[in-house]
Formats: sequence, C-alpha cells, structure tokens
Amino acid sequence: MNHPPQDDVLLAELAQRTLDRCEAAAAFTEEPGRITRTFCSSAMADLHVALRDWMEAAGLTCRVDAAGNLFGRLESPLLDNAQTLLIGSHLDSVPNAGRYDGVLGVMLGLALVEAVQRSDLRLPFALEVVGFSEEEGVRYGVPFIGSRALVGDCDEALLQRKDANGVSVAEALGHFSCDAAQIQSCELPAKKYVAYLEPHIEQGPVLESEDQPLSIVTAIAGQTRAAVRFVGAAGHAGTVPMELRKDALCAAAEWIIEVEKAAQQTLGLVATVGTIEVSPGAGNVIPGEARLRLDIRHTDDKIRQAAVEHLIRLGKDLQQTRNIEFQFTTAHEHSAVAMDAAITTMLKQGIAAAGHRTMELPSGAGHDAAVMARRWPSAMLFIRCRGGVSHHPDEAVTLADVTAALTAIWHFGRRLNSKILSDYF
Amino acid sequence: MNHPPQDDVLLAELAQRTLDRCEAAAAFTEEPGRITRTFCSSAMADLHVALRDWMEAAGLTCRVDAAGNLFGRLESPLLDNAQTLLIGSHLDSVPNAGRYDGVLGVMLGLALVEAVQRSDLRLPFALEVVGFSEEEGVRYGVPFIGSRALVGDCDEALLQRKDANGVSVAEALGHFSCDAAQIQSCELPAKKYVAYLEPHIEQGPVLESEDQPLSIVTAIAGQTRAAVRFVGAAGHAGTVPMELRKDALCAAAEWIIEVEKAAQQTLGLVATVGTIEVSPGAGNVIPGEARLRLDIRHTDDKIRQAAVEHLIRLGKDLQQTRNIEFQFTTAHEHSAVAMDAAITTMLKQGIAAAGHRTMELPSGAGHDAAVMARRWPSAMLFIRCRGGVSHHPDEAVTLADVTAALTAIWHFGRRLNSKILSDYF
Repeated sequence: MNHPPQDDVLLAELAQRTLDRCEAAAAFTEEPGRITRTFCSSAMADLHVALRDWMEAAGLTCRVDAAGNLFGRLESPLLDNAQTLLIGSHLDSVPNAGRYDGVLGVMLGLALVEAVQRSDLRLPFALEVVGFSEEEGVRYGVPFIGSRALVGDCDEALLQRKDANGVSVAEALGHFSCDAAQIQSCELPAKKYVAYLEPHIEQGPVLESEDQPLSIVTAIAGQTRAAVRFVGAAGHAGTVPMELRKDALCAAAEWIIEVEKAAQQTLGLVATVGTIEVSPGAGNVIPGEARLRLDIRHTDDKIRQAAVEHLIRLGKDLQQTRNIEFQFTTAHEHSAVAMDAAITTMLKQGIAAAGHRTMELPSGAGHDAAVMARRWPSAMLFIRCRGGVSHHPDEAVTLADVTAALTAIWHFGRRLNSKILSDYF
Repeated sequence: MNHPPQDDVLLAELAQRTLDRCEAAAAFTEEPGRITRTFCSSAMADLHVALRDWMEAAGLTCRVDAAGNLFGRLESPLLDNAQTLLIGSHLDSVPNAGRYDGVLGVMLGLALVEAVQRSDLRLPFALEVVGFSEEEGVRYGVPFIGSRALVGDCDEALLQRKDANGVSVAEALGHFSCDAAQIQSCELPAKKYVAYLEPHIEQGPVLESEDQPLSIVTAIAGQTRAAVRFVGAAGHAGTVPMELRKDALCAAAEWIIEVEKAAQQTLGLVATVGTIEVSPGAGNVIPGEARLRLDIRHTDDKIRQAAVEHLIRLGKDLQQTRNIEFQFTTAHEHSAVAMDAAITTMLKQGIAAAGHRTMELPSGAGHDAAVMARRWPSAMLFIRCRGGVSHHPDEAVTLADVTAALTAIWHFGRRLNSKILSDYF
C-alpha cells in the first residue's frame, strides 16, 4: 500500500504550487483591498485566463460552458470512451472572502492531474477539473447556479432573475461571453461520469480541535430556517409589577435556552438563533414583541424534523405559561444529502494511506456536492482550516494539511484506478 | 366623618369639569393630529392662556415664574402669612401623548380650589396650584426642569443646554417671555410651604387589577440603568458543533431569565431588559456579541443595589461556565425618594373618607414629587388608568375615578385644615 518516497516529494511540491495558485487567485477581485469575486464578474474572467493557462500547461483541454463553468479535461490514455472523474469546487466568493473556500478544491483537482501526468499511472478514466461559476448565492440571492446547470436545473425563471443593478442572469452570462440560450447544453450525461469529488476547507473547528488534517463528509446536513415571533404586551419598566407582565423578550430568552439544550442533547444537531429584535426597543419599556430567526441542521431529516416539532411544542407551552403569543413560520427547508458510500470508502482509504485518522464529519454548510449527488456518486474531502474560520480574510490552511489532502486524493485516484481496472478486465 | 350629600354633587360636577379641561388642554399641541406639548412651545403658551382664564375665574392670582411654571394662588382668608399647600403636576407631554399624564393633576388642583371656594371652608392656609413647565425631558433630554427651579437646582449648564435645533434653555425661556437670568428667583422659601401634593395617573396596571380607583404612593423608586455586553465568538451556524460554541445570545438569554427570576423573587423589585442587539446578526451566523440594557427599580435602595450585585455575580458565573466575556456598565443611578409619612397618612384618610380601600403603591416612574420632596413634605395620589397605559393616546380615566380622586383630595384638605387649626390654636 505504501507509495514510493519520490511521490512524497512530488506531492509536497504540488501542494506548495496549489497554495501559490490560491494566493495568485486572490488577486483577482472586484473590490480593491479585499477578495470579492462574484458570478460572471470581470475578476472571474481574469481568473479564468490565469487558470486556463495553468490547466493548458498541465496538458488539459479547456472549455467554458454556457453557465460560465470552467472545465479542464485529460482523456484516459488507456480506454476510449472511458468514464470521467470530475474533481473541483467553485471559483466565486462571498464579499471580503478568504483565499481557500472553493478555490482550494479546484487547485487540488489541477494538482491531482499534474501528479498523474508526472507519474507512470495510465488511468482507465478521464480526469476533469471543474471550477464552478457560482456557489455562494451572492449576486443573485440563489446559490449553486454552476452545479445546477450540470444537472439541468437552470430554468428560464433563474435566467431572468436580476441582480441589484437590474442585470439578469442571462445578461450577465452574455457579458461573460456565454450564451444563456444554450444553458441546457451544460447538462452532463449521467453515465459518462463515474464520480464527483470535492475537496473543501471544513469551515468549522472540529478538525482543529481533534488535531487532524482531513475528514471525509458523511452527508450534507438538511436545514430548516424559520422566523419566530413572540407577542406579549409592552409596558412601563417602572410601573408594571413582574406578575402583571407579558414580557416577549423573557419568553424568547426561555425558548432560546431550550433551542440550545435540544441541540446539546441530540448528537449531531446544530441549532442557532442568529438574530433577535425587540420592540418597542427602549431601555425603560418592557418588550412587547420579540422576533428571531432559527437555523437548525442535521444529516438525518427525521431527527431535524423531530427537533423542530419539539421546539414548536415548547413555544406553544410558553404561550400557555406566559400568556403570550408564539408564531413559528418555516422560511426554508431542505433535506440532507448523503455522500456516496463506495466513493467515500475509497476516499477514507486514501486518507489512511496518507497516514491520517479517517475522521467522519457531517457538513453543516451547503456545497456543490449536494447538487452533484442528485446524479453522480459524490464525495467530499474536508481540510482543516485555522480556527474554523471561513468567509473571512483570516481563512488559513497549512502546507502540511494541503499536502495531506493531495496525498489522500492521489491514493483515492489509485484506488479508483484499481477498481475500474478490476471491473473492466 | 361623613360629608354632606351636597358635597357629592359638587365634587362630581367639578370632576366632570376637570375631565372637560383635560380634553380642552389636549387641543393645545405642536403636532396636528396628536398631542405633543414640550417645554416653552407655543402650544404650551396657548395652554397657559386658557388655564389662566380658568384660574382667574376661580379667584386665583396667577403668575409665571422665570422657569415657565404657571401658578394660581388663593390666599388664606383666615390667617395672614399663612403657609401654602402646593398642589399640581406638569403641563408638558411626551410626543404623541395621552390627555391625562401631568395635566390631570393640575386640573384636580384647580378643582380643589373651586370646591373650597364654593364651600364655607375658611382655610388657615393658602392654596397654590402649579403647572410645571417641564417634567418629561423631551426637548432637552433632562427631566424636571420646572420643579428643579423651585428647589434652586437650575444652573448655568442647564440654561446653556441646547435642543435638537440648537436653541438653548435660556433662549427657549426668552421666547416664552421668561427671563432666564432670573431663574434663581424661582426658588420657593422652604418655610412658606406646608406640603406638596401631586395627583397623577398610575401609569401602571395595579389599580385596575385590584379593582380600586386610588392609591397613595409610598415612595418613588430608585433606579439603576446599565449597559450589558456579552462577547463570545461568531461562527457558522452549520459547521460549529454545539460543544465548541461561545454563543453570546445564549449567554444573554440565560442572564435575562435570571434577571426576571431575581425580580419575581424580590417583593417590589422590577427589572427589565428592554433592548437587545446581536452581531453579526445573520440567520446563519452564531451571535458573537449581544448588547442589552437593564433597568432595575425598587423603593429600597439597598434591595436594588443587592439585586444589581446579584446579577453582576451571575454574569460573572456565565463568564466561567460559558467561556464568554461579560461587561456591566452602570449608565445611570438614582436613589429612592420616600413620600412624607404625615402628609401621606392624611391622604390615606382622605381616600378612606371617599369610601375606598387605602392602597399603597410604589411609583416606578419618576415624578416632580421626587424633586419637591427634597424640600417639602410631599405626597402623591395615584388614579387608576385604563390598561395601565400612559404616554400614549389611549390613556383613559373614568369620571367615577376622577370624582373619587377629587373627593379624596377634598377630605385631605379638610384634614390639613383641622391639623393646622389645632396646631395653631
């Protein structure tokens, strides 16, 4: 199972190059002094030019599809009509982003191609690196435009959606030299792809706290977002005795504690009240109303739904005990998406072969892999990030961890190679 | 102790007149469609004209002092150099106010004079009705300008204070035909006044819930206002597991519940968190910081201070158990002011003579009586208001309750009469 020592040297060199490319990509921004790169921006076009150069130098054949996704393809030297392993992530960013969220996955895909090219491996599958055009949902308020195009999920309503300046998705694509009328041509044939692999920073603190560089992802969590409202009665903070109050904030506080408790007592559940507003909102006035937003996630939809029902029940209890009104309005809900067991097992073997513990984490955040998993066996590799920080200039990864990631992907590729060869012959 | 039936008829008639005058006063406003009457406004000047007419028709001698307070005086028919009973409240209002907060107390003072004039009572004291120019603190952000002038507590710094339009207190007084340079002349000689009595709506729901029209006030509560800040760590709502969080809102919620509990468990204590803000403040981000404002009041300063210390201790406990930062900054603090026992006892007797239970309430809100009590024996009479509502157009009192209030004040006057006569002769 061990790989020759010269592989280590090569992979470490390519990991350094991967970091250098992330650094170079960070210069392509639409806001001076900070990293912001949205869908079809000129910063994105500039990054495409640089990335195409790197891809073509590595021997890849490049194309940009009608949704603005950049692909670099290396055919199988072994089989005609071979299936394809797609590897990558997204190239867009949030405003004032870090260097690694998305970009690192694309650059690791390219590094894998370079490692393959410099080895004696003759793969029985094609390798395709993808840089998705849109994942963060910044410009149009809807995420995953790039990967949705690959599964044929970009309709006319999406194309007509407008950004803050009144520019539609279709117009933005036009400015990006893409023909929105051809958006359906982006859909990839299901059978021609063997799997999708997405390396991505963890965006959370678990790997750091466990002192591990890598993890596979078991599933991308399902999510419920809700607007919650408590209505009591405003009153003078000096003149209404405690027993005659209907303080909406006290009711909300009691519920917030229950939200936290429910999540603490349920393995894998995360639940967050991220906003709260009270009115009238003066220091000497009892809050008559409190409005808050709940975000609750789990990789098992039943557990998430049971938790939501539990919290609604507790809210209704408060309605009785505190004589206030409780309203719960679901704003958004999506199901969990499991990663593919067979592909993920190979990725685990890759992590083990790279010499690391095979951690298993859920992904609390959404990823392109959740869209791609609708059609192809998909897997994700999480890479430790400093402090669990993402969507912030402080995002950081180490060379050692990126080397570990590339090594794990390399071994994953070798396992996929063996598997396809043994299936084929 | 019973009064003749014709008194009842007279007092009911004067109570109706009192309500009519409150209604008429509501028309003097600086904002069309709602009641807003601030210090030295033209609406206040117009109200002075009407009120002077009513006062002079009742045989009172009127004057406006250098602080814009309006006085109407009826000398004692019995004694030269008699002491004076001062009765009244304030004539200014908050923006979008009701009809009774302040004004009702002034009009009840006037009604008492009219009742005395129409009786055969020859009082051994002068009666002076006062309408204070400023109590609410709206125009200059500091309350009690009117009553502070009577105790010699208006200094040059106050006179130079500016409103939102850059007009100083001194200039505003000038526009109101008052000479700010003479502000020290407002100070009343301590020995010439026997007591100050302030009738006022309760501004709370206790009388309504107890089904009683009236109450004496034991004391005006002391108050601590504080800014409280919890600092944890922001993070992704999907990717940070519960055990690695430092959620500032959860910490704040736990503390808010303790604030409520502390007040519920301490007789007479009221404690309110009236505002809360969290940041970053997004539905999918763990709150890294929560800022809130505490208002805590009690008529016993030691109890209030002990409660504040208890809540600071609990915040420090949370600092340990939740690994977050807790900051408590006192923004404002004032001591409780006890009402005068002897005068209040006479007022209680007045309430009993009017046929009502002698309720005793603290005042959670501030009043001119708190300033006047620095120099003169002071008492307050609370009148039930519908729903406990004040500072709002929905303020309402009933004719029956105002009749009860006037009857109680009338009997208070008779008791003060007997007391002074027995002391004198």
